[in-house]
Amino acid sequence: MKSFVIRGLLGVSLLALACSKPAPPQQTIGASKSVKELMAARGLTEADVEAALRTYVPTGKSDDYMIFASGGQSGQVLAIGAPSMRLLKVIGVFTPEPWQGYGYGGGSNAVIEGGNQGTHKITWADVHHPNLSETKGDYDGEFLFVNDKANARVAVVDLKDFTTKQIVPNPLVSSDHGGAFVTPNTDYVIETSQYPAPLGREYVPIDQYKDKYRGLAMFWKFDRAKGRIDVANSWAVELPPYTQDLADAGKLDSDGFVFINSFNTEMAIGGTLEGKPPIESGASQGDMDYLHVIDWKKAEKLVAEGKTSTIKGIRVVSLDTAGKEGVLHLIGEPKSPHGVDVTPDGKEIVVGGKLDTHATVFNFEKIKKLIDGKQYDGKDSYGVPILNFQASIRGQAEIGLGPLHTVYDNKGFAYTSVFIESVVAKWSLKDLKVIEKMPVHYNIGHILAAEGDTVSPDGKYVVAMNKMSMDRFTNVGPLYPQNFQLLDVDGEKMRMLVDMPIGIGEPHYSQMIKVDKLKTTKVYKMGENVYTGQKDPSATLAGQEKIVRNGTTVDVYMTAIRSHFTPDRIEVDEGDTVNLHITSLEQSEDQTHGFTINMYNIDLSLEPGKHENVTFVADMAGVYPMYCTEFCSALHLEMAGYFLVKPKGTTTTAAPAGSASAVPAAASAAPPKK
Amino acid sequence: MKSFVIRGLLGVSLLALACSKPAPPQQTIGASKSVKELMAARGLTEADVEAALRTYVPTGKSDDYMIFASGGQSGQVLAIGAPSMRLLKVIGVFTPEPWQGYGYGGGSNAVIEGGNQGTHKITWADVHHPNLSETKGDYDGEFLFVNDKANARVAVVDLKDFTTKQIVPNPLVSSDHGGAFVTPNTDYVIETSQYPAPLGREYVPIDQYKDKYRGLAMFWKFDRAKGRIDVANSWAVELPPYTQDLADAGKLDSDGFVFINSFNTEMAIGGTLEGKPPIESGASQGDMDYLHVIDWKKAEKLVAEGKTSTIKGIRVVSLDTAGKEGVLHLIGEPKSPHGVDVTPDGKEIVVGGKLDTHATVFNFEKIKKLIDGKQYDGKDSYGVPILNFQASIRGQAEIGLGPLHTVYDNKGFAYTSVFIESVVAKWSLKDLKVIEKMPVHYNIGHILAAEGDTVSPDGKYVVAMNKMSMDRFTNVGPLYPQNFQLLDVDGEKMRMLVDMPIGIGEPHYSQMIKVDKLKTTKVYKMGENVYTGQKDPSATLAGQEKIVRNGTTVDVYMTAIRSHFTPDRIEVDEGDTVNLHITSLEQSEDQTHGFTINMYNIDLSLEPGKHENVTFVADMAGVYPMYCTEFCSALHLEMAGYFLVKPKGTTTTAAPAGSASAVPAAASAAPPKK
Repeated sequence: MKSFVIRGLLGVSLLALACSKPAPPQQTIGASKSVKELMAARGLTEADVEAALRTYVPTGKSDDYMIFASGGQSGQVLAIGAPSMRLLKVIGVFTPEPWQGYGYGGGSNAVIEGGNQGTHKITWADVHHPNLSETKGDYDGEFLFVNDKANARVAVVDLKDFTTKQIVPNPLVSSDHGGAFVTPNTDYVIETSQYPAPLGREYVPIDQYKDKYRGLAMFWKFDRAKGRIDVANSWAVELPPYTQDLADAGKLDSDGFVFINSFNTEMAIGGTLEGKPPIESGASQGDMDYLHVIDWKKAEKLVAEGKTSTIKGIRVVSLDTAGKEGVLHLIGEPKSPHGVDVTPDGKEIVVGGKLDTHATVFNFEKIKKLIDGKQYDGKDSYGVPILNFQASIRGQAEIGLGPLHTVYDNKGFAYTSVFIESVVAKWSLKDLKVIEKMPVHYNIGHILAAEGDTVSPDGKYVVAMNKMSMDRFTNVGPLYPQNFQLLDVDGEKMRMLVDMPIGIGEPHYSQMIKVDKLKTTKVYKMGENVYTGQKDPSATLAGQEKIVRNGTTVDVYMTAIRSHFTPDRIEVDEGDTVNLHITSLEQSEDQTHGFTINMYNIDLSLEPGKHENVTFVADMAGVYPMYCTEFCSALHLEMAGYFLVKPKGTTTTAAPAGSASAVPAAASAAPPKK
Repeated sequence: MKSFVIRGLLGVSLLALACSKPAPPQQTIGASKSVKELMAARGLTEADVEAALRTYVPTGKSDDYMIFASGGQSGQVLAIGAPSMRLLKVIGVFTPEPWQGYGYGGGSNAVIEGGNQGTHKITWADVHHPNLSETKGDYDGEFLFVNDKANARVAVVDLKDFTTKQIVPNPLVSSDHGGAFVTPNTDYVIETSQYPAPLGREYVPIDQYKDKYRGLAMFWKFDRAKGRIDVANSWAVELPPYTQDLADAGKLDSDGFVFINSFNTEMAIGGTLEGKPPIESGASQGDMDYLHVIDWKKAEKLVAEGKTSTIKGIRVVSLDTAGKEGVLHLIGEPKSPHGVDVTPDGKEIVVGGKLDTHATVFNFEKIKKLIDGKQYDGKDSYGVPILNFQASIRGQAEIGLGPLHTVYDNKGFAYTSVFIESVVAKWSLKDLKVIEKMPVHYNIGHILAAEGDTVSPDGKYVVAMNKMSMDRFTNVGPLYPQNFQLLDVDGEKMRMLVDMPIGIGEPHYSQMIKVDKLKTTKVYKMGENVYTGQKDPSATLAGQEKIVRNGTTVDVYMTAIRSHFTPDRIEVDEGDTVNLHITSLEQSEDQTHGFTINMYNIDLSLEPGKHENVTFVADMAGVYPMYCTEFCSALHLEMAGYFLVKPKGTTTTAAPAGSASAVPAAASAAPPKK
């Protein structure tokens, strides 16, 4: 009641003191200040006040949108609330993440190990482009797919529990970039290669680059019911070694097609030590590169008909077949392009040339006509038909220096990131005229829009994903954070709302979804194995706890509940194989336990109902506490026990005591006195 | 100019429409809204408006404070700006972090490997208490120390470059908690054990707990000039197996002393499977536990005099010696205490009993008098003298249910986190009366205050570090973020400013420093080895690049500069040992490059001037791109090259081509046509 009165009085001072005419003296409470006083004290402008009020989310209220941003070299995905631009979660994807117990002994280990390439264990990624699953071209909030450029992999994140369920390594290519885009109903997750290499990665000298190095478009079949990529039913299309870059799937009118650009059709291979020009100049010689147009429904038919070669278990439509059968067409595109973005209506494809000043608007109807009429300008040296550039485009928007990526709103406007100029350029899809440029800080790479990749973008927000942030934030060392800047695009003019430092990884692309589309679980079913979605066969309920020895294998069936483990004492022999089976008996929201055995590099996160299985060898004798790593209750520190490993060859329990003290053994300590 | 006019007009509408009397019609620009309209549209109260304006930091301005928060089970440290509560950086500490190139091949590997315990590689931590280095009891902004509860380790983060330089494993204990606190001039970094175990961790049956299990207070000597813990000059004091909890160092009047509380003086050891009570009840039987008072200057003298035993290379003052020589005294403290916090003037020590309702204020002068007068209530069963509780305290503040930790402001107030009640209790140190309680969401654990652990706290801000956040944020899966709530404590009443979700790890303690105390580097010296602070012997400048083979060892001296590597083609034989030496030739702020060799799990962050050395075996034949993982320029994708590994036994360069295509080798591709 007292607090209500205070708030009421504060409200008066807050609003009244903002008037231009002198207001009657106000009763002020403590150090409460009016808007004007606060503006003066903190150096805020009117625009700042408006921006603050457009982004502030008070305690107890939540954000309207969620952004899924790639974590770049962190290997993870960032879930960010908008408009508050608060980091809600770093989702462990390719890199082990101990808070989530991801990759520290439990079921997630198999997910990470499933992503190994060749004989190498890989424990990081360069995450580029997160893409939400779609139904009829609209985000459905069920899954998120991301690609790992550095190790040519794709991961599936289940948004039911924000957990990575699958990592699929691509056995054919050495890197990817144009991924992980989806077709409008998520039939396929698309991953296209970047740096050409022999398919299958076998050694071939670099001087055979043009002959033997290749690109690839991988079509990973997605099984929505299982929530997994179905590797056996996936296939690929071989591409020329043109260094394919970004890609996008057609939708509505252009459904059934995929568009991939490229930037080194010169096929430069560097040689800096040998005195040759670096790739950056070699790749920038030509005025045009190639937009690749793939008819994936035609390719799918060829695959079904068996018109493929099989490399490392993957069926591949060869470059020769792709060219001859009308699966692949090329169109010139200026110059060293980066972004390729299909418009919401699916009718056009916008390409930004990073060494160009234009955004080029390709028209699908025109392209389709050329394809259907087999009107070719000729073929490239790999036999792929080339369509005429001028005949394929509607026009070009004069954007500025270094246009990269383009996103869309609900009012017919496009927003292009312009790297060198450090602006967001807003332009009209109708007449291709630039309307406004908003300076961003600095060197914007990707850009994202609310529901921007769907058939019905929301408008409202655009985020500039800036690569540099010098002078924006307090210095946190020579490695600077990136800078996301939230722009309001609801008005006639764009408004700069707020800066968000990204101090973990360098995000590439992001997508922004309305939060009401997410149907996320609060607790797991009792004994659920997160990776099967079923009750685990070893799930342990209260009263079922036991320790079972079979030779040198010890199975421990455990439960965790506020605030103890059962059992809380486990003794094994050095060299024993230990299988822990732990079920959290909790069912209250947010009642998470952790579990670690000290110095055994085991760490689990036991959300309510979750079951985990851990297998390890007790190869280090000694006394190791095990405890709940979550502050789960007032007595969380007491949620502990001991894991004891008896040294090999010990026949009696007498062991050298580590005590430095000469104090005789105390039978019992005297209770402390008051 | 246009934008200036717009801003001017907006200002008018913004302020004028906030008046209670009807204002003349305002010219509005686009969808610009007044404060009142925005409040209505977004459901903001007057308190929300004030909170927004107290926390919003516009682009181009930066925060006043930096919070260093432990990352809990993430193993990292979080650097957070205040009042904006934006995450500026996740600092890689115990867990490999690929964006920072931390633990992926470079010099940081040795730091992480230095933290291995016994024969186990450890790649995570349960980070508990970050502590800034101090000079005369004030934060000096030079270093940050954190402890790893799960693996009994302490790390040193250099704030010159926000980089972890050292991880020191404690060979004696099995877990720690009361760390990593510093003495007022950072002579020592203190790490006290938590779960008792035989010192040295040798196996001893659990039934010998009272006789052979022990606690320990480790005094790590810090060499400020070197910026490293000096292990050889470090030492420890053996403690009874009372499950020591938090700790704090004395300052000013109490300089030279350390205070450690404990919570299981009952020495309960559980046995839940065997039908015995869990530790949580066994440890809660007694009304009192023991505050441990250590005279570390006296202990240091004993160490110098050689009155120690040596266990695993560490000199230990035995429990017997500590008791007899007046190094260790015990005082009863109610009940299952958690926080122990020395007041800024060093005169008092506040202890929160988590099963108690009080904060107990111990008085150092009283304690010192009892010690000096050898006025003991008796000794515990380990021979340690016990001081009288009532004679040691000034009084108790009636706080509420579950008081944990206490921090201080500059006006004589204390702020105690109250877990079960979910409030921050503000009380007066003068009369120990509670003045106000602020509800927090939910279940607050630690609490922090601006410059709160120094001899001169700033007041202004307090942060409630809440463990639970159900209903505060959009659901991001069954594993919920924690919730930091920033409170303004500058006024007569506390104000709730903003919620910050923590979606990476579960922070325990944090410290908050004024940013002007940080003297962080913007770029490295040319060729600097970050771990020696010197120019690396292998630093490579422009023109010095080369590849040198010695038998099966290949040394590659490389440079990185916008936007190419020299060399950009490296060919080795399968099985070769490869030493990469890479120098970034950049010297511009924020001009970072990355470096990876695909599928070799190598990933470096090359900030301006930085030099890195990487050694690995080229054990997987094939073609692997290497590239810059940072969006370093418009042509960042072109900053790439190839690492080729020739298979063993290959005598010619002819190798099976991976191409699926039957297309004949193309001599050159036709340039695309316009």
